[in-house]
Amino acid sequence: MSTYVIGHKNPDTDSICSAIGAAKFFQALGEEVTAARCGEISKETAFALEKFGVEAPVFVEKVGAGDKVIMIDHNEIAQAVDGIQEAKIIGLIDHHRLGGLETADPIPVTIKPVGCTATIIANMQLHRKMEMPQDVAGLLLSAIISDTVLFKSPTCTEMDKKTAHQLADIAGVDLQAYGMELLKAGAGVGDMTPAEIIKTDSKPFTFGATKAVVSQISVMDPKEVLDMKAQLLEAMKAACDANGTDMYMTMVTDILNESTDLVFYGNNKALIAEAFQKEVSAECDCINLPGVMSRKKQIVPPLTEAAKRI
Amino acid sequence: MSTYVIGHKNPDTDSICSAIGAAKFFQALGEEVTAARCGEISKETAFALEKFGVEAPVFVEKVGAGDKVIMIDHNEIAQAVDGIQEAKIIGLIDHHRLGGLETADPIPVTIKPVGCTATIIANMQLHRKMEMPQDVAGLLLSAIISDTVLFKSPTCTEMDKKTAHQLADIAGVDLQAYGMELLKAGAGVGDMTPAEIIKTDSKPFTFGATKAVVSQISVMDPKEVLDMKAQLLEAMKAACDANGTDMYMTMVTDILNESTDLVFYGNNKALIAEAFQKEVSAECDCINLPGVMSRKKQIVPPLTEAAKRI
Repeated sequence: MSTYVIGHKNPDTDSICSAIGAAKFFQALGEEVTAARCGEISKETAFALEKFGVEAPVFVEKVGAGDKVIMIDHNEIAQAVDGIQEAKIIGLIDHHRLGGLETADPIPVTIKPVGCTATIIANMQLHRKMEMPQDVAGLLLSAIISDTVLFKSPTCTEMDKKTAHQLADIAGVDLQAYGMELLKAGAGVGDMTPAEIIKTDSKPFTFGATKAVVSQISVMDPKEVLDMKAQLLEAMKAACDANGTDMYMTMVTDILNESTDLVFYGNNKALIAEAFQKEVSAECDCINLPGVMSRKKQIVPPLTEAAKRI
Repeated sequence: MSTYVIGHKNPDTDSICSAIGAAKFFQALGEEVTAARCGEISKETAFALEKFGVEAPVFVEKVGAGDKVIMIDHNEIAQAVDGIQEAKIIGLIDHHRLGGLETADPIPVTIKPVGCTATIIANMQLHRKMEMPQDVAGLLLSAIISDTVLFKSPTCTEMDKKTAHQLADIAGVDLQAYGMELLKAGAGVGDMTPAEIIKTDSKPFTFGATKAVVSQISVMDPKEVLDMKAQLLEAMKAACDANGTDMYMTMVTDILNESTDLVFYGNNKALIAEAFQKEVSAECDCINLPGVMSRKKQIVPPLTEAAKRI
């Protein structure tokens, strides 16, 4: 019977660092909460935790009846920790679209259309003139750098930039230099298997009647990943077969040149054709989307709208 | 192509006054928005508007493609203005449970578990040290008095009370005296027909597979209403038949003695028996619930939970 502050499955740097930052904030207000995670730490997140000397949140495989959950950086049941239906959701801080969550009682909800949950959490503390520890500032900064790809993503707002600069001052780091260091730590696929690559930052969605997964890997050199396309498609097929998923899409995002190659497998390619207004033949399994860096702003909304039209 | 700040269908004093208050707030921030309503003004609301010399929000029968909507005091599509699915929801301020809303893009959402939406809207302005006109303060105060039944409802929080006192000071009214005046204006069924009585503050809900309507009429003398029970049940039957509703429930709430008689019609009386742990025979059509004044806190959650168990 605990109260967990927890991000989504397959946590990215925002889900981990915002859970830590929000937990510290609620603790400072006198609440008994525990920062938690429901997935492995990414290379990028590990770099940030190491840099600021903070331990990873406690791993929680499943929550249950009696547990309370403050959802961070997600609001869709499909993306939440296992057992969420049995637990009681008592709060929500997020920057994503509303995804159909239902609760029995009213709960506090703060959602802002900014680039990063950490921006909202940092401002909750900055507005209240609460003192922010250097390590927490460093982690929240890392989340903003990660989610906005160092301000290059179209999801990035003035509020994200301003907050990141304030946090860099508190954390005592050079924003630009640390930002590139952090992104480099998370880029490169190194010795990752195709299955690991397609599962990077993957999230389930439902577009109309289509059960889909959209994952994203951000790299400096997309060719390194695209050369493995045949193996990636095999891994996607295996994942679809195992989970009854209709469409699997992996965004291979070039963070230097600000574009995305969308590699996809599944039975509803018409959805992709309609969403991005492209010719998509039965053989087609990859489209290039110049300027696209954000799943939330540039991939999910067109797919959502396309599903209503076809 | 307008941006409407609008409450739920069958608007109560909070939905009308909070729409006006929020519209004034957004206008002060430089946004072009229009306060709107999608239903008739109640006697209680008319009294408040008259008292502070403010016109009712513009009536909007239907919104459409191109319109933008800031939802106030509700977040369930079934309770929203007609055409909401075609319009773009761009914001949400509320104090109810999350009811499954989906949006294509991230939008700003503020939900707090307080007694009244007006409490949240007043504090958005008070926190920013914005000047609040006397008439707006009076209307937001009226909403708090109405939703919390002058602080008697279990939904009422310390924040509602504190805010109401601040607003009464700005509006220049005696809180207790004006509060009783306002509640009296809305109580009494006067020459209302049975159909009008059961439609007072009515909202649709879905409990499991059961399509239900729960309405609420707050009175000083419940006997006056309960004497018409046979006619109320006839009106409920007619409403169910006309709209394909399974269960119709009307809360007859005694605001002086703080209790509710729940009058009900429909094919799933087992739901009511399970929710309130009462013997409900096939002939039973009314149960007394001492201490119950809040649909949101004391009626909807037990029905939601009961639907999961039966």
